[in-house]
Amino acid sequence: MPGVRLALAQLNATVGDLPGNERKIADAIAAAKEAGAQLVLFPELAITGYPPEDLLFKEHFLAAARAAVDRLAALTDGIAAVIGFPERDDDVYNAAAVCSGGEVVGVYRKLRLPNYGVFDELRYFQSGTEPMVVEVDGVPVGITICEDIWVPGAPLTEEALAGARLVVNLSASPFSAGKAMQRERMLAQRARDSLCAVAFCALVGGQDELVFDGSSVVLDHRGRPIARAPQMAEHLLVCDVDTDAPAAARLKDSRPRATLRVERPRVTHLPPIRTGATITSPSPEHRVGGELFEPLEELSEVYAALVLGTRDYVEKNGFGQVTFGLSGGIDSALVALVAVDALGADRVKPVTMPSRYSSAGTRSDAERLAENLGCELLTLPIAEPMDAFDAVLAETFASRDADLTEENLQARIRGNLLMALSNKFGWLVLTCGNKSEMSTGYSTLYGDSAGGFAVIKDVPKTLVYRLVEHRAHRDPQNPVPEEIVTRPPSAELRHEQRDDDSLPPYDVLDPILEGYVEEDLGRDQLVALGLPAADVERVIRLVDLAEYKRRQMPPGIKITPRAFGRDRRLPIVNRYGG
Amino acid sequence: MPGVRLALAQLNATVGDLPGNERKIADAIAAAKEAGAQLVLFPELAITGYPPEDLLFKEHFLAAARAAVDRLAALTDGIAAVIGFPERDDDVYNAAAVCSGGEVVGVYRKLRLPNYGVFDELRYFQSGTEPMVVEVDGVPVGITICEDIWVPGAPLTEEALAGARLVVNLSASPFSAGKAMQRERMLAQRARDSLCAVAFCALVGGQDELVFDGSSVVLDHRGRPIARAPQMAEHLLVCDVDTDAPAAARLKDSRPRATLRVERPRVTHLPPIRTGATITSPSPEHRVGGELFEPLEELSEVYAALVLGTRDYVEKNGFGQVTFGLSGGIDSALVALVAVDALGADRVKPVTMPSRYSSAGTRSDAERLAENLGCELLTLPIAEPMDAFDAVLAETFASRDADLTEENLQARIRGNLLMALSNKFGWLVLTCGNKSEMSTGYSTLYGDSAGGFAVIKDVPKTLVYRLVEHRAHRDPQNPVPEEIVTRPPSAELRHEQRDDDSLPPYDVLDPILEGYVEEDLGRDQLVALGLPAADVERVIRLVDLAEYKRRQMPPGIKITPRAFGRDRRLPIVNRYGG
Repeated sequence: MPGVRLALAQLNATVGDLPGNERKIADAIAAAKEAGAQLVLFPELAITGYPPEDLLFKEHFLAAARAAVDRLAALTDGIAAVIGFPERDDDVYNAAAVCSGGEVVGVYRKLRLPNYGVFDELRYFQSGTEPMVVEVDGVPVGITICEDIWVPGAPLTEEALAGARLVVNLSASPFSAGKAMQRERMLAQRARDSLCAVAFCALVGGQDELVFDGSSVVLDHRGRPIARAPQMAEHLLVCDVDTDAPAAARLKDSRPRATLRVERPRVTHLPPIRTGATITSPSPEHRVGGELFEPLEELSEVYAALVLGTRDYVEKNGFGQVTFGLSGGIDSALVALVAVDALGADRVKPVTMPSRYSSAGTRSDAERLAENLGCELLTLPIAEPMDAFDAVLAETFASRDADLTEENLQARIRGNLLMALSNKFGWLVLTCGNKSEMSTGYSTLYGDSAGGFAVIKDVPKTLVYRLVEHRAHRDPQNPVPEEIVTRPPSAELRHEQRDDDSLPPYDVLDPILEGYVEEDLGRDQLVALGLPAADVERVIRLVDLAEYKRRQMPPGIKITPRAFGRDRRLPIVNRYGG
Repeated sequence: MPGVRLALAQLNATVGDLPGNERKIADAIAAAKEAGAQLVLFPELAITGYPPEDLLFKEHFLAAARAAVDRLAALTDGIAAVIGFPERDDDVYNAAAVCSGGEVVGVYRKLRLPNYGVFDELRYFQSGTEPMVVEVDGVPVGITICEDIWVPGAPLTEEALAGARLVVNLSASPFSAGKAMQRERMLAQRARDSLCAVAFCALVGGQDELVFDGSSVVLDHRGRPIARAPQMAEHLLVCDVDTDAPAAARLKDSRPRATLRVERPRVTHLPPIRTGATITSPSPEHRVGGELFEPLEELSEVYAALVLGTRDYVEKNGFGQVTFGLSGGIDSALVALVAVDALGADRVKPVTMPSRYSSAGTRSDAERLAENLGCELLTLPIAEPMDAFDAVLAETFASRDADLTEENLQARIRGNLLMALSNKFGWLVLTCGNKSEMSTGYSTLYGDSAGGFAVIKDVPKTLVYRLVEHRAHRDPQNPVPEEIVTRPPSAELRHEQRDDDSLPPYDVLDPILEGYVEEDLGRDQLVALGLPAADVERVIRLVDLAEYKRRQMPPGIKITPRAFGRDRRLPIVNRYGG
């Protein structure tokens, strides 16, 4: 029995862009044929982008998606293709069209629908019921979609038992730090458990709060990666798979046989496909496997996700330039670095908006950073509007001391100025708040949080520092003035202000937040981890109280296992403390 | 066989307020006993409030809820109680504790979990598998929770077939206009189909974007309402049910018997309960039934929902006063009326913020309305901050004409002033944008949309007019100056501005929005309804483009079948037009 040459089209689809996505898929089919592939794979819902959310409630959207799949199927002459799309039949299914010889020869329906974290698939889809195997040039191939493979058992196990030598998975798997390798380890275990090769073809690109990191990979039946696409970029990964080896391995490894004895779903077998592709692999002339890109290490991976998420939000929404307040602090420095790497310096328009509380140090650091990055820096002082607001409010506030009100006013004047630039020039406003601030409400609603995209909203402050240092030292000529990293953090909204007047030090705060926000630990559990009880209680209260602010924050890139937004859904009216 | 006296505790639970909710439930148990009830019912998840959302991911929260239920069970001496709570066992269930004789004698688990519209129950709960019947003083009573009864079939049918004369339903059913009567008609059909009495006990109160309207009701086996609680208010509804009549009816009506022949789930029968309650009903001395409040008519119902939603958001979040911009237009007039009805005039602090574009007419209307309502009106002119912003931006904007930028700046200055009042005095800022504006993006982000609660964000403009007229004429001395209703709508951000410069007339716009936003109709379907094609295309484009703005809007009260927020989930990056 021969092997098979695969092409995995790791595409950056855009939600709702049916013509654009169709074009990309058509191009990839052509390129895969050119590369001699017998089977080309596409990501989950490649035709619509992922997640299409409530677009799936529109009959005309579903009909248009289906029409695109039929047109693409017509291109599958001399190759088989598996394309993710929403299938409208008696109900709606998250499906994969198996196309060959110019037509759709079968449709696989995702069995396992995720409805946790950022996923709401049970809102939209009916589950499929049958695993599916299709023979491509004599090689039995099992089909699965994303979540199907995250849970042991059906459909993968059934497909392997029904003879599949290779199981393919069409995926749209959102990034969080370290997830790509965790995912690959899981896939390796599935391959080993069922003694079949696994080809994982993933979406790449930013979509609102999510980044899809790609990380498509092919593993042999022993779980060893034999081809891997780069992370965070489009790629057509071509790979030759030895499909005799899994069959041979099963002769001597009887573990999967035991599974045969329990009651299992029926497996659909499609009619065999003959692609007539010119190359049947592996052949003596070429090796099993394909390109094998190294996975990114921890900080590079997160940084690359921020760059990709920012670039795609800007470009997919059709913006030319971005703007933001460059304060001379660490947060806006990170946003500046990311924005320049994402878009190029000429599309990045930082603004310094000094007040009487801005130190000479932060101002000159902002200027040096902008200069080092090659960005033009606008200066808009806020003293005049501050005085004007003070005058309007003087009578009403006559008997009251200055307090947070006046600090917030400064932040809101800055927000207004950035929004005015946005209105006048069409620039997208980026915000610079980090996750530690987002969690504790240490920000001004409509002030520093005003903008269209919150680049680092899911990045804890301690990680902000690490990312800036990482990026700074990647450059032979470090563009980041040393003081930006070493100066104690301050909002500079009153004299001598420091973040740690209001918050625990960040190396205490961030572990509390990780436990409370990402792991749902309670007060007692956090204290048992060795965190200071008084800080734990204060932070829990701050996080709970800030829910109303977070509800009005712009979207930003998820990089942790639980971001704010659709990933963490808490009521505003909530009297439960902790 | 005797009848049974029920008490339906239509409670206003607060999410997360376990001690407060426990107290309310304990009080209602005592009151029900005092009224001679044998069985007292509570709403779905009464102990936690609904929806608790991701609080359900906290083990300590679930444990505390269970402890509260156990304490409440100890109070069920001489009465049976059915209390909604989240049960933590092998998994988490949306459950009802059947309590009697001082303990929890059984737990019913909701079979049907809604995961559509505003509901995400499959994110949190495992489904139950068994219908349940419990005999209370000789009367077989079936138990269901909310969604269980919205779908024909199990568990209600099974419980009736297993002998239940009465099926109770614990509910938390979010309001939309007209839903209470639609729900009652559905319940009546269930009663008729299964020939059993139905007692529907519902949550009441506001929770973030949702209002629960109550509308608890008891229907006899012919579907006739025999007791009904008032809408939008807490109430203990006591009702005597004749449970011989359903049994007698089944002798001569064989329809339900046919259902027996299909394969059905096993029904759990709890051990019989003897309450020893002093009254066994119906007795010769008192009639079947109980208080029967009339349902509210259309406009009264929506208005009452706005009042309840506003009051609960303010009070459950612990605010004393509210503030908002009172422009002299129809939208802020409605917000003023609602706020005063919800909180009393002394807690309502409207502000007029005139600019050079404010007409004398709107200013004096705002003053008269505030005076008529008995509210103090603050005046904060915005000319000075406008000039200051113009000065700061003069150089940067030198070569550009005035445009939307300058209009937005005015709105944002007003937003800043309201937020300054909020910061200084702790007032909650209400926003006054209606659904027509929210849909089309006809509002300024961080300007008129800045605030904590968007009272009328789900009220289309045409309905705003009807509600103001309705409320105005309810008062013998109409507090609303006539011009507020008759003047053409304007944002007053430039000279002679009118809404219909930018938007189709509202009587064209609102039907397009209803079709597009609430019913997912496409362009062609809307045009087929007789709506003007050019307007349809423009409005679809406006709605799609404004998604980014809506994502940053404050929460507001859902009154339509599909509100913005968790009810309608669309991507921001979305290239699908329509």
